[in-house]
Amino acid sequence: MRTSLSENTLHVIAKIYTDFSSKFGIPRQSGLVPELRGEIVFESEFRRPEAILGIEEFSHLWLLWEFSEARKENWSATVYPPRLGGKEKKGVFATRSPFRPNSIGLSCVKLEEVILAGKDAPKLIVSGVDLLDGTPIFDIKPYLPYADAHPEAEGGFGQAHKEDCIEVIFPQELLNRLPKEKRQAAWAVLAQDPRAAYNKQPDYVYGMAFAGFDIRFRVEGNILIVCDVVPRTEDFQRIK
Amino acid sequence: MRTSLSENTLHVIAKIYTDFSSKFGIPRQSGLVPELRGEIVFESEFRRPEAILGIEEFSHLWLLWEFSEARKENWSATVYPPRLGGKEKKGVFATRSPFRPNSIGLSCVKLEEVILAGKDAPKLIVSGVDLLDGTPIFDIKPYLPYADAHPEAEGGFGQAHKEDCIEVIFPQELLNRLPKEKRQAAWAVLAQDPRAAYNKQPDYVYGMAFAGFDIRFRVEGNILIVCDVVPRTEDFQRIK
Repeated sequence: MRTSLSENTLHVIAKIYTDFSSKFGIPRQSGLVPELRGEIVFESEFRRPEAILGIEEFSHLWLLWEFSEARKENWSATVYPPRLGGKEKKGVFATRSPFRPNSIGLSCVKLEEVILAGKDAPKLIVSGVDLLDGTPIFDIKPYLPYADAHPEAEGGFGQAHKEDCIEVIFPQELLNRLPKEKRQAAWAVLAQDPRAAYNKQPDYVYGMAFAGFDIRFRVEGNILIVCDVVPRTEDFQRIK
Repeated sequence: MRTSLSENTLHVIAKIYTDFSSKFGIPRQSGLVPELRGEIVFESEFRRPEAILGIEEFSHLWLLWEFSEARKENWSATVYPPRLGGKEKKGVFATRSPFRPNSIGLSCVKLEEVILAGKDAPKLIVSGVDLLDGTPIFDIKPYLPYADAHPEAEGGFGQAHKEDCIEVIFPQELLNRLPKEKRQAAWAVLAQDPRAAYNKQPDYVYGMAFAGFDIRFRVEGNILIVCDVVPRTEDFQRIK
């Protein structure tokens, strides 16, 4: 039962453009892969330089955004976090799962550059993104370390596998197929092990869409080996 | 111009009950007054113990909430932050001002207790609140220090007056009029200097509604002197 009092309408103020045209490979939280950049373009109603006046004084920003690809008609009280192998049940409010009563995500990104001139200006270049290409943004807030930073906080089960990293073999001739400025980010994303914790199949060739390319790899033990890099025709068509 | 694509409807999942029946005195960010407690009561549809399963493993939580008392029909691209004396203009996305395109606030609170039995259970007791009594909550997320804690972040003008504190004289006979468990919090709130930065009138008697009492004080130089503590009839009527 929903009454008018308990409803509130949200407006998309911007969209963020990233190298991820599909979910596979997106870091599970913001900041985990600092090399990943995003470009925030305001919707026309909000595309006003004065609305970001002074934002350059902050090194980090909060983004409130829409889980646009992970909406469900009904919310579920419990979820099975991938980091727990998909086997253990947790309450939705004890997780950052996208399947929540209100589909709002929270990410902390680093502010790299404020672009004040040119097409679609003003734009914000940010890094450490964990967002799908084209994700709608509801709010941008400055990160206030005196209120927001709690390094002493206890992270519960979310922290359990924090240091998980996998060795990556990325043959030079394949790496060279990627644009120079995307290589480091691609490597860092793979090192996070994009496979979901509960879906680790030996001998399977995975494909990760990244920066307009399909990066194909398999995993042997704890080593991820890139076996092909091919342009994604569908992404180029989408951009056209 | 708003199209259906750029709209999203929010649902209130809970309300938080605090000692502030009016805005005056509420700390300007969460965590600044650790003594301030709040009780989160879920709306009936979301009042299910399994929805918070595992939440006790986290020491801190994010609350996404509605600026219910600070809504405007139209957003303004710039605001005058009180911390800058109300004289300097900043872009709304460079501030945590309530007057934003989407009226969503973000607070980090400490999880003190999970109450699983009794009336309206499950309930969450949190501390470090900066919220008005009855504030509607849209989401509760665990604080993940590995992604959310950036003590090295630069805080811009938000940090300028971080250490502002005022000396408080609270005569014992007046302090005794407050319930014992509210005294420390009241003192800490006053020490933050509840007067807005641009509204510091000498010889004026301010009244702060707190925990069902009206705490009256004046400020001489840098000393805040409590001059009366009286029960707030309107609050008691409201509770009835």
